[in-house]
Amino acid sequence: MMKNTVLEFLKKTDGYVSGEELSSTLSVSRTAIWKVITQLKKEGYEIESVTRKGYRMVQTPDLLMAQEIQYGLQTTLLGKEVIWFQHVGSTNEEAKKLGTVGAKEGTLVVAEEQRAGKGRLGRAWVSPPQKGIWMSLLLRPRIIPMDASKITLLAGLAVCEAIHQVTGLEAQIKWPNDIVIHGKKVCGILTEMSAEMERVNYIIVGIGINVNTECFPEELQNTATSLCIEAQQKVSRIQLLQRILCTVESYYLPFMATGAIESILPIYKKHCATIDRDVKVSGRNIEVLGRAVDITKNGELVVRKEDGEMITVLSGEVSVRGVYGYI
Amino acid sequence: MMKNTVLEFLKKTDGYVSGEELSSTLSVSRTAIWKVITQLKKEGYEIESVTRKGYRMVQTPDLLMAQEIQYGLQTTLLGKEVIWFQHVGSTNEEAKKLGTVGAKEGTLVVAEEQRAGKGRLGRAWVSPPQKGIWMSLLLRPRIIPMDASKITLLAGLAVCEAIHQVTGLEAQIKWPNDIVIHGKKVCGILTEMSAEMERVNYIIVGIGINVNTECFPEELQNTATSLCIEAQQKVSRIQLLQRILCTVESYYLPFMATGAIESILPIYKKHCATIDRDVKVSGRNIEVLGRAVDITKNGELVVRKEDGEMITVLSGEVSVRGVYGYI
Repeated sequence: MMKNTVLEFLKKTDGYVSGEELSSTLSVSRTAIWKVITQLKKEGYEIESVTRKGYRMVQTPDLLMAQEIQYGLQTTLLGKEVIWFQHVGSTNEEAKKLGTVGAKEGTLVVAEEQRAGKGRLGRAWVSPPQKGIWMSLLLRPRIIPMDASKITLLAGLAVCEAIHQVTGLEAQIKWPNDIVIHGKKVCGILTEMSAEMERVNYIIVGIGINVNTECFPEELQNTATSLCIEAQQKVSRIQLLQRILCTVESYYLPFMATGAIESILPIYKKHCATIDRDVKVSGRNIEVLGRAVDITKNGELVVRKEDGEMITVLSGEVSVRGVYGYI
Repeated sequence: MMKNTVLEFLKKTDGYVSGEELSSTLSVSRTAIWKVITQLKKEGYEIESVTRKGYRMVQTPDLLMAQEIQYGLQTTLLGKEVIWFQHVGSTNEEAKKLGTVGAKEGTLVVAEEQRAGKGRLGRAWVSPPQKGIWMSLLLRPRIIPMDASKITLLAGLAVCEAIHQVTGLEAQIKWPNDIVIHGKKVCGILTEMSAEMERVNYIIVGIGINVNTECFPEELQNTATSLCIEAQQKVSRIQLLQRILCTVESYYLPFMATGAIESILPIYKKHCATIDRDVKVSGRNIEVLGRAVDITKNGELVVRKEDGEMITVLSGEVSVRGVYGYI
């Protein structure tokens, strides 16, 4: 695509690129180049044009567009197809539609804003414009539905590490896959699947990260935070998104081959805010107090109840003492 | 709807219904009545019109249209919404689309013909026009994904009983949910779901029954049969479909309340062609020979291996000696 080539030229050049150089390299007219530049400006790129010097990239827009995500991206599967929205109901809903019509494994849906963003169990997820990463990955692993929650764990770990790598912040995982910093939630992951009883058709890993939110409504201030608040500076969404694609892929590809998560469990547990903490497990009609002591190879949480009995928790609400204001 | 009222009048009247009677009862013009009659004829109803006598229903078409399914239907949930297709790719695909856009629980998708009918694991399912019942039910149970296979069992039992009630044939269930007669397959059920890790969004129960197929291609003659072949007479598709909706509902409503299938297990096992038979369980890389001895309260098959060890099988290929030509 000519647009991407022009963009690459402008990005890798420190000073000016002449229209003549561009038109001769791409073998198109200078009018064609001018049209591409105009298009890029419309998309939000700030490009300076100076007579007899040419074009210079002043600033790329703070948008998660395909060409920005894919520029220099070091993955082989994830993000090779990117569907970008200025705003959308929810990226998971769009990704599910794509899954149904046969879109490729690794397809990424990303939006600047979600107007009906969803958390687990139908809860609302606030996703203001350009303040976060609101993304969904379409995966097609050959697994049975029961193993889908392993992907949830794997994604949680990958996002946790990506956040640390890009910001230096000590993020932790609240089992199974919330990411917390200083006991406040910075990222939620909503995994959904379409499946037969014996195999998964596709899995959607929806990831929502509060990146550059400056402040939260009062009722959320004790439980929610953003990377920007924690790092006390703006964080590059593009850089973080690229990093996430790399870390998720680095865990997903080996998982695909083996179907097992044993190899990542030690790292997962190390980053897990739930292990060795007092927890409250809330089910439909029960509430169990105890201490989280381990995670099984199926990804279940092992809790030692107050009376000493050990139980494994597959899903459900687990409150961790010291996290989200639970005392 | 005026069409349904006219239809009901014609069906419940043995002789002629005068146009005058219809128009005065419905408070519409006789021209309006004439238009409805014309419409019904187009849909395949054979209606005799005789001057000064009126209209008489000679024959209803052999089609699974909404008004036919709902006429006299004794359910409270299933089939209250019917989406009918002359032909369709697959009813499960249509039902999944409806599930995604929020269609009501109990919605029935039914087609005269499927052109891309699917069995388990992506296998093709042949669905010739008007020869079978090709249907999908949309359910929205409040269960976790792991419990979805219970609905598969429940549906298998319900279809098995409906077949017996309508045709008198001794149908059996090949675990988990194929229906067989004399060792040949007469019905397949493909259950699919959309789910989060902790709850099901919706479940599609796809049911395909060979009803009036007169003969099968040679390569299928040892493994496939139809109700018509087994009963040696044509079977009413409408009557069977209505019966299925009733029997599925009669098992589904109590399941919804308790989330358990213990109460139906004794009946299920009685009709199960797999229990007390030699079986071969084929997994990804393994093959196990043994005897099927029980079904657990989670719907798993319990197999006693040749060496005496007991294993439970959650899903996968289970060949039963004497069924589908497995010797």
